[in-house]
Amino acid sequence: MIPFTYYSPTRFIFGNGSVCKVGQQAKAYGATNVLVVYGSFHAERSGLLKKVVDSLALEGIKVLTLGGVKANPVDSLVYKGVQVCKENHIDFILALGGGSVIDTAKGIAMGALDDGELWDFYSRKRMPQKALPVAVVLTIPAAGSEGSGNSVLTQESTLLKRSATGECIRPRFSILDPELTFSLPLYQTACGIVDMMAHIFERYFTKVTSVDLTDEMCEGVLRSIIKAGSTIRDYWNNPNSVEMKEARASLMWAGTVAHVDILGVGREGDWSVHALEHEMSALYDVAHGAGLAITYPHWMRYQMKFKQERFDQLAERVFGVKDGMEGIQKLSDFWTSLGMPTRLSQIPGFKESDIFVMAKKAKRNRPGELGNFHPLNDDQVVEVYRSMI
Amino acid sequence: MIPFTYYSPTRFIFGNGSVCKVGQQAKAYGATNVLVVYGSFHAERSGLLKKVVDSLALEGIKVLTLGGVKANPVDSLVYKGVQVCKENHIDFILALGGGSVIDTAKGIAMGALDDGELWDFYSRKRMPQKALPVAVVLTIPAAGSEGSGNSVLTQESTLLKRSATGECIRPRFSILDPELTFSLPLYQTACGIVDMMAHIFERYFTKVTSVDLTDEMCEGVLRSIIKAGSTIRDYWNNPNSVEMKEARASLMWAGTVAHVDILGVGREGDWSVHALEHEMSALYDVAHGAGLAITYPHWMRYQMKFKQERFDQLAERVFGVKDGMEGIQKLSDFWTSLGMPTRLSQIPGFKESDIFVMAKKAKRNRPGELGNFHPLNDDQVVEVYRSMI
Repeated sequence: MIPFTYYSPTRFIFGNGSVCKVGQQAKAYGATNVLVVYGSFHAERSGLLKKVVDSLALEGIKVLTLGGVKANPVDSLVYKGVQVCKENHIDFILALGGGSVIDTAKGIAMGALDDGELWDFYSRKRMPQKALPVAVVLTIPAAGSEGSGNSVLTQESTLLKRSATGECIRPRFSILDPELTFSLPLYQTACGIVDMMAHIFERYFTKVTSVDLTDEMCEGVLRSIIKAGSTIRDYWNNPNSVEMKEARASLMWAGTVAHVDILGVGREGDWSVHALEHEMSALYDVAHGAGLAITYPHWMRYQMKFKQERFDQLAERVFGVKDGMEGIQKLSDFWTSLGMPTRLSQIPGFKESDIFVMAKKAKRNRPGELGNFHPLNDDQVVEVYRSMI
Repeated sequence: MIPFTYYSPTRFIFGNGSVCKVGQQAKAYGATNVLVVYGSFHAERSGLLKKVVDSLALEGIKVLTLGGVKANPVDSLVYKGVQVCKENHIDFILALGGGSVIDTAKGIAMGALDDGELWDFYSRKRMPQKALPVAVVLTIPAAGSEGSGNSVLTQESTLLKRSATGECIRPRFSILDPELTFSLPLYQTACGIVDMMAHIFERYFTKVTSVDLTDEMCEGVLRSIIKAGSTIRDYWNNPNSVEMKEARASLMWAGTVAHVDILGVGREGDWSVHALEHEMSALYDVAHGAGLAITYPHWMRYQMKFKQERFDQLAERVFGVKDGMEGIQKLSDFWTSLGMPTRLSQIPGFKESDIFVMAKKAKRNRPGELGNFHPLNDDQVVEVYRSMI
């Protein structure tokens, strides 16, 4: 184990119907003038947005709303939100949605208290020191942003997808109401499953030794996600079954556990697959989870040549097979059974020449080799991308 | 899963040598006048107390010390500490030790800001609303008090052992420096191993269904503790080996993970074994871990009649055997191999008639039956105690 500081002060409020507590919670955290950030019109049509706004209003909290966040969120909407905050003396940001909405809300929260160039925080020129308080009502278990101090945005002008990090953007509280996920389409559910598993893999693939405790926890959570995901797939036509509802609940908490870093302490993660995928979803606007489903098995097969032992352990403990390569295949088969793609050629608009564009961008602002587990040089990055075609 | 709120704002600073950061950390949390609470003279002889006091002084923090905390801490020393705080305008309590020291420090922190009867918080007549900030330098991985909002004390006048709970006594930061545990005797190490495993068992034995995610995490941490404990036992004569040092580090973090409640969310714990043991260690002053090592296997054998399935799962997933009873035996054998007792008759001064005294006290202030997994009525409590003779 390597030295670490673990600090996770977010208050997680979990349970069916817990969305109704959002007003009391926001008030308890001192909110008086809230901007609710959300994504699709689903929030409006389903009545969820109204339920949240009413709960806030009931506590005498003033509310403005900002919709329109899309998957792979861009900086332009953040600038719009920052302007709304500054013009209306907003003192609290509530994200109502999944990772894209939460990351947009975090960007707005930083920009609202900053007079410099917001992108500096994403290009790592500056570290954010202050932000408006952010809270979350989660609707998609996937990104783990409800418990993290990170925000990932794409800069529209460059199509660079980058992340900003700071304690000040860690959500004050996050409401995890499994009922809000009962109507989530299979494709989005699957993308979330891949995303949360990827967050564990990024931590699992480390060159740090003596990490048995966190290995055991990572492997246990992976097994549980696979069980819940399989149940959701198998009970798809019984959305009201106890099995389905319990699997949805388990998956919702798993997504938070996967990224709150209790699985990553004392070890150095790899994170190269996220770097490879970010450029993919920035270029094609493919869902992050779908991009990860393409990238991970190919990255694993490539890395297996260099570090077989870790893949054999994963295969045996998580997939119940002895051989690492067989384990990788079982992982890929599981994701395929949920409707996830396996190759770049399945992405509309993909051209082989784009590989060099993505490889160049994945390496930009990252000196040296990519990743920590078994770092990739420029040629190897291209080789891994090529294996995904 | 049942609804829950998970809130764990303690900052954990883990790593060899991290004790040197205590001064900076205390200052960052606003400490100006600190009372350092500690236990044996070991802290003095080893130079650890001086190291901590110097680190605080270096930051311009005034320091007073209060030593003499013993295992199964009593209320009298707490009253003494409260007086010191009130007379010297102490604004921060630093616990330097294990669970007994931390729980004493928490008691002092509550008493320092309260003019009523402190024991009210332990008899649950009142809930603590405010306390001086508490922080920890941990020297014994066991109780998990470094990450919890609980304090367990024994009232000398009644020999009642009770716990107080409140967010206000949750440590602001806890320094986990594995090096401080390298010299821990095998007996104390073993007591710690039993204590942290017991904290997981209390959560593991639940009647709540659909708890696969936390089951997997509980079982993984249990396996890891058994591995680390076995390594410490097997490398006892190689205290400077890498294996020993890594096992000590793993065990230190495991003790925190076991009780910080990430393993208990969404499920209702049992906690009857802690109730049974508390009266044992209150009456005989046997170490809490040793008392738990006696109590748990007998409680498990008794409960197996009613809830075999859960014991079979534990046996298979943690001990690699099919039959629940065989798993319980493997658990007992593991603890015995570390020098833990298995029967009440091994406790100096034990008399069979004491069983009724303990049974009566264990039930006091607990209306109805004892525990949640498979509750015990008065006769069953006596029966379980009798099986331990």
